[in-house]
Amino acid sequence: MTGRVYGLGLGPGDPELMTVKAHRLLTGARHVAYFRKAGRKGQARRLVDGMIPDAAEEHPLEYPVTTEIPLTDPRYNEILSAFYAECVERLTKLTDAGEDVVVLCEGDPFFYGSFMHLFTRLPKDRVDVVPAVTGMSAAWTATGAPITWGDDVLTVLMGTLDEAALTRHMIDADALVVMKIGRNLSKIRSALEAAGRAGSAWFVEYAAMPEQSVRPLSDVPNDYTAPYFSIIVVHGQGRRP
Amino acid sequence: MTGRVYGLGLGPGDPELMTVKAHRLLTGARHVAYFRKAGRKGQARRLVDGMIPDAAEEHPLEYPVTTEIPLTDPRYNEILSAFYAECVERLTKLTDAGEDVVVLCEGDPFFYGSFMHLFTRLPKDRVDVVPAVTGMSAAWTATGAPITWGDDVLTVLMGTLDEAALTRHMIDADALVVMKIGRNLSKIRSALEAAGRAGSAWFVEYAAMPEQSVRPLSDVPNDYTAPYFSIIVVHGQGRRP
Repeated sequence: MTGRVYGLGLGPGDPELMTVKAHRLLTGARHVAYFRKAGRKGQARRLVDGMIPDAAEEHPLEYPVTTEIPLTDPRYNEILSAFYAECVERLTKLTDAGEDVVVLCEGDPFFYGSFMHLFTRLPKDRVDVVPAVTGMSAAWTATGAPITWGDDVLTVLMGTLDEAALTRHMIDADALVVMKIGRNLSKIRSALEAAGRAGSAWFVEYAAMPEQSVRPLSDVPNDYTAPYFSIIVVHGQGRRP
Repeated sequence: MTGRVYGLGLGPGDPELMTVKAHRLLTGARHVAYFRKAGRKGQARRLVDGMIPDAAEEHPLEYPVTTEIPLTDPRYNEILSAFYAECVERLTKLTDAGEDVVVLCEGDPFFYGSFMHLFTRLPKDRVDVVPAVTGMSAAWTATGAPITWGDDVLTVLMGTLDEAALTRHMIDADALVVMKIGRNLSKIRSALEAAGRAGSAWFVEYAAMPEQSVRPLSDVPNDYTAPYFSIIVVHGQGRRP
């Protein structure tokens, strides 16, 4: 009997927003794997503090590089690709021995997640993916207003896109979610301004976590260092009775 | 002490994909309200069969109209608006008496949900919204492939939009989700064809429910009657090491 790998969506951060299924698999796990930057605890691991069984074995998967090499450098792909292959080898040794492994994923595993890089390299008949509440759902819930009404078009954008592409999509959509903000805040703001959407944009940090903060984007200075868990939300204004 | 109204996101259908919080609030509820078409059990109510405590009181909120009057008829808005006001009155009587009420919501309450129409009419300090796994997360998970990679742009479209708007958005986005399919299937297909995306589109019915079905859109005839729980998914093909 071979074991299985579970791509376990943890949701946005609040342990109560984990699904019943993720909670059951996590609290019954014998092997728990997760990505992290070398020398750090890991964002996903931090979300489940106190929930991993004492007897479970932990398998940190440490990125060999994160931002030291630019994405455009061909070495980046080579190094990452070798790393993912090595992670899959570690997981496969466990499943070959009949052990199940849960891989912790922030948010929903198939929505801009790192687990996808393992998923595509694992035999499909040994993997299960558990969907989860996305960080963006937690962000729009935190703003206290619905994101989409009626026939609203929702577009999800990465702040890493160039300004012209951002602006074009921002003009064309009704509701907007912008993620991967980091050092792109002033570029994203310029695009929102060009699209006439800056005045109705909200800046949400740490949605569904104890540090949660929600404020109009206009209150955030351009040189603000947006944390990893930051999302910009612009609500749709579609049809409503 | 006044009670609270909980807009309870149930997720896509599988009770195990409910959040721990929604599960706790539902199984401890004294009052459970939900929308339904007159004479029907209700989609949301059906998802929680066997989970509502025996002692809980149920409050079906029955739509006075659904598809009998076109959305464009001014009477539609008037009738619906009066209905929502009446629902809020019923809920407020309960919270005035100190009772908590959970309102069942399919998917995520703030993402194209009906609960929003109650939310905007209720006093904000008496409402909590519990986000949930969306139907679209369940749909892309069911296809067994990630929806977005790297800097992919995801656009969510309602099949009720006109064909030109659908086509324009389909050309401009990397990953696509189309909901509200119903009678719009052949129009959506034409738009996907015009955008060159029809060949990579998947048709998912009843994601995360026992009847789940996933097939290429090309296998679905144009005269097929798409059920309420149908979603079309086109995966992004963004950067990956």
